[in-house]
Amino acid sequence: MNFSSKLLENAVNEVSQLPGIGKRTALRLVLHLLKQPASQTHQLSASLNNLVNDIKLCKKCHNISDVEICEICANPSRNSEIICVVEDVRDVMAIENTSQFKGLYHVLGGKISPIEGIGPQNLTIDSLIEKVKEGLVKEVIFALSSTIEGDTTNFYIYKQLEKLAVKTSTIARGIAVGDELEYADEVTLGRSIVNRIPFENSL
Amino acid sequence: MNFSSKLLENAVNEVSQLPGIGKRTALRLVLHLLKQPASQTHQLSASLNNLVNDIKLCKKCHNISDVEICEICANPSRNSEIICVVEDVRDVMAIENTSQFKGLYHVLGGKISPIEGIGPQNLTIDSLIEKVKEGLVKEVIFALSSTIEGDTTNFYIYKQLEKLAVKTSTIARGIAVGDELEYADEVTLGRSIVNRIPFENSL
Ligand SMILES: [Zn+2]
Ligand SMILES: [Zn+2]
Repeated sequence: MNFSSKLLENAVNEVSQLPGIGKRTALRLVLHLLKQPASQTHQLSASLNNLVNDIKLCKKCHNISDVEICEICANPSRNSEIICVVEDVRDVMAIENTSQFKGLYHVLGGKISPIEGIGPQNLTIDSLIEKVKEGLVKEVIFALSSTIEGDTTNFYIYKQLEKLAVKTSTIARGIAVGDELEYADEVTLGRSIVNRIPFENSL
Repeated sequence: MNFSSKLLENAVNEVSQLPGIGKRTALRLVLHLLKQPASQTHQLSASLNNLVNDIKLCKKCHNISDVEICEICANPSRNSEIICVVEDVRDVMAIENTSQFKGLYHVLGGKISPIEGIGPQNLTIDSLIEKVKEGLVKEVIFALSSTIEGDTTNFYIYKQLEKLAVKTSTIARGIAVGDELEYADEVTLGRSIVNRIPFENSL
């Protein structure tokens, strides 16, 4: 690209470093900002700087938080005997959105992935094991996505929890509510048959 | 969305104000930044702030520029007798990329669009007419995308130039009707400038 302005070029280069944003998209976004009042860009920049400068990870569950102990962990009405293990904050948000879970979370920060160079030591697995060893946790629910990396991570944690007096479970896999059976992939459909539940439980 | 952090929520809200960026994409981008060194976000913010604070519009052609008179207008080897009328900086970049045009540009800043409330007075049309009235311009090339708005704008300018001693032409329709100029391939765009036709022939 042949820029007429160094200021424009710098902005486009920085924006195009974001994942999934090419140079053309970056240029479109930056030209949009130029048409808005400068205050919009100042607010955008300030919100991003404030985030990376001041964000914390909850000392208990490792979720993204503005304070040392997050709202969920600090809530006395949540059941601290049940821990749901998730990959990142998006999964916490998705599960909270269902209003179906009243326990606490443990955010791993990723999945074991030899290809991406992510080992157990890069995740918060040790902290989870320590928490369970304290003896107050009754159940650990695995809620990682069912990919090779997710399954590997589940299994790695499961092997360490096996010796401890804690129940382990994993979220049900099956056909999404509202989905057509014929479009479901074989593995999901197969698992949903093997792991069928009493009909009255589905009512 | 059910945010666990006000800092995160603010950042996602600001980013999702960009065109074509929904809340989910904004969250993905912001979480990506959180995984990078804070310096990357600081650089991104600074480049955007510097852009909106310090950018200028060239006093001659109205193109985006870091200085009062842009590089193209300030270049004595360019032919100031030929003016190519374009919508915005992306079109200047696209045409410069073909190396087929050695005249100067006039950046309108948009197209006449009653639906979007953009009239001739919102564009730099008067400045173009004044420039031509000075008598040194021999040819004005219309290079707006061939949409209803582009054609309307061309025609509006054409009617004002008709009385003046200036040749008008329009880039050849090698570019598909309805396509955006900036997405045209270099060869097509280059040829369409070389094979431009008198404007009245395009009516
Ligand atoms: Zn927490
Ligand atoms: Zn200029």
